Amino acid sequence: MPIPYPPSGSAAGLTVAPVADLLGLVAYGELAAFDRMAADARLAPDLRRRAMLSEMAALEMANYRRIADRLTELGVTPGDAMAPYAAALQGYHDSTEPRDWLEAVTKAYVGDAIADDFLREIAAALSEPDRRLVLEVLHDSRYDEFAGAEIRAAIAVDPKVANRLSMWARRLVGEGLSQAGRLAGERVGLTTLITARTGGDVGVPGLLRRLTAAHTARMAAVGLNN
Amino acid sequence: MPIPYPPSGSAAGLTVAPVADLLGLVAYGELAAFDRMAADARLAPDLRRRAMLSEMAALEMANYRRIADRLTELGVTPGDAMAPYAAALQGYHDSTEPRDWLEAVTKAYVGDAIADDFLREIAAALSEPDRRLVLEVLHDSRYDEFAGAEIRAAIAVDPKVANRLSMWARRLVGEGLSQAGRLAGERVGLTTLITARTGGDVGVPGLLRRLTAAHTARMAAVGLNN
Repeated sequence: MPIPYPPSGSAAGLTVAPVADLLGLVAYGELAAFDRMAADARLAPDLRRRAMLSEMAALEMANYRRIADRLTELGVTPGDAMAPYAAALQGYHDSTEPRDWLEAVTKAYVGDAIADDFLREIAAALSEPDRRLVLEVLHDSRYDEFAGAEIRAAIAVDPKVANRLSMWARRLVGEGLSQAGRLAGERVGLTTLITARTGGDVGVPGLLRRLTAAHTARMAAVGLNN
Repeated sequence: MPIPYPPSGSAAGLTVAPVADLLGLVAYGELAAFDRMAADARLAPDLRRRAMLSEMAALEMANYRRIADRLTELGVTPGDAMAPYAAALQGYHDSTEPRDWLEAVTKAYVGDAIADDFLREIAAALSEPDRRLVLEVLHDSRYDEFAGAEIRAAIAVDPKVANRLSMWARRLVGEGLSQAGRLAGERVGLTTLITARTGGDVGVPGLLRRLTAAHTARMAAVGLNN
């Protein structure tokens, strides 16, 4: 039986719609990340790296399962909750298909981190247990570290790589922002959460500033320029 | 520190080489199955099936991890143990790329089951704990049931599908046998295990007879003809 959500008397007082909107986005994000990392594993230069990326992809599906179970508990079919995001996320991935291993790890390093920061900000507007659930399934730092180390190692061998990957990262951010804008216009529930979180003294510009600052710091950390 | 294998006084008395050969094959099999199921998930007709296949793919990597850990324990680098199988298994998968969802599930239903039967037969020649480990990581029946149900449902809707998929299954078996023959010629350790198991009264012809009988029964169970 679907559990009424949120519990009556909840401080946030959100209806199920925005919560399901966000969980649907997170669930589809896991599925898309799985799909992309599994495909990128084929670009790996050796079996060790291929297995490592494949294992990280598999982890996404364990996270997917947790979100899908929660959606079911809320009385929402996971497929229905995910469907609105399929076109935008697929559009992003189709338009940023990595041509080699370094583009693949850079995409994961840059793109996943921005998406995680974004979802972390929005999740703060949720009540428990959803807030904790979303924060828990966001990527742990293991993949960031792996991807970052691959980028740094490649630049150490050939410094020219930094320019190529910096340009690639800028393209990823541009495509990502374009699809995010499209989504925000379409999904009112999600917009409610963003406003709930960033209402007060910061607003959407504050959110964007924080995301940009974190992105710039991450780029610098691996020797890429913004 | 690598554990000496097998423990002295082991009945089987196998050296580490054939065991690592088999574990390497199983590990690469998991990695290849992951890769293929993840790619096939893109062919799924809806998000529910796509997520289901993606989750089953993820399960392969959990199994991969168990085998890789055991190889490491035996003092063998997983990448080294897997490398000899990459060409043959990749060759099989490249020459049997499914064109649609039904070909994908048929490939999984037919191909994985034969591979599992084969590995189960060979695993019987191993000492513990490797025997049990291999038997545990072989595909559980969940995916078989899912794939079988998809095939039966498609034939119920359009009986002509049975002919097309029967032909496809025959091609899968042919390609699989051709790559298996290539492997057997190259990997002496593996051949040792096959002979150890099928020595006695049955021999390799007995092994092939059992594999064929099980395959025929599986085909009939979903309405395909051999």
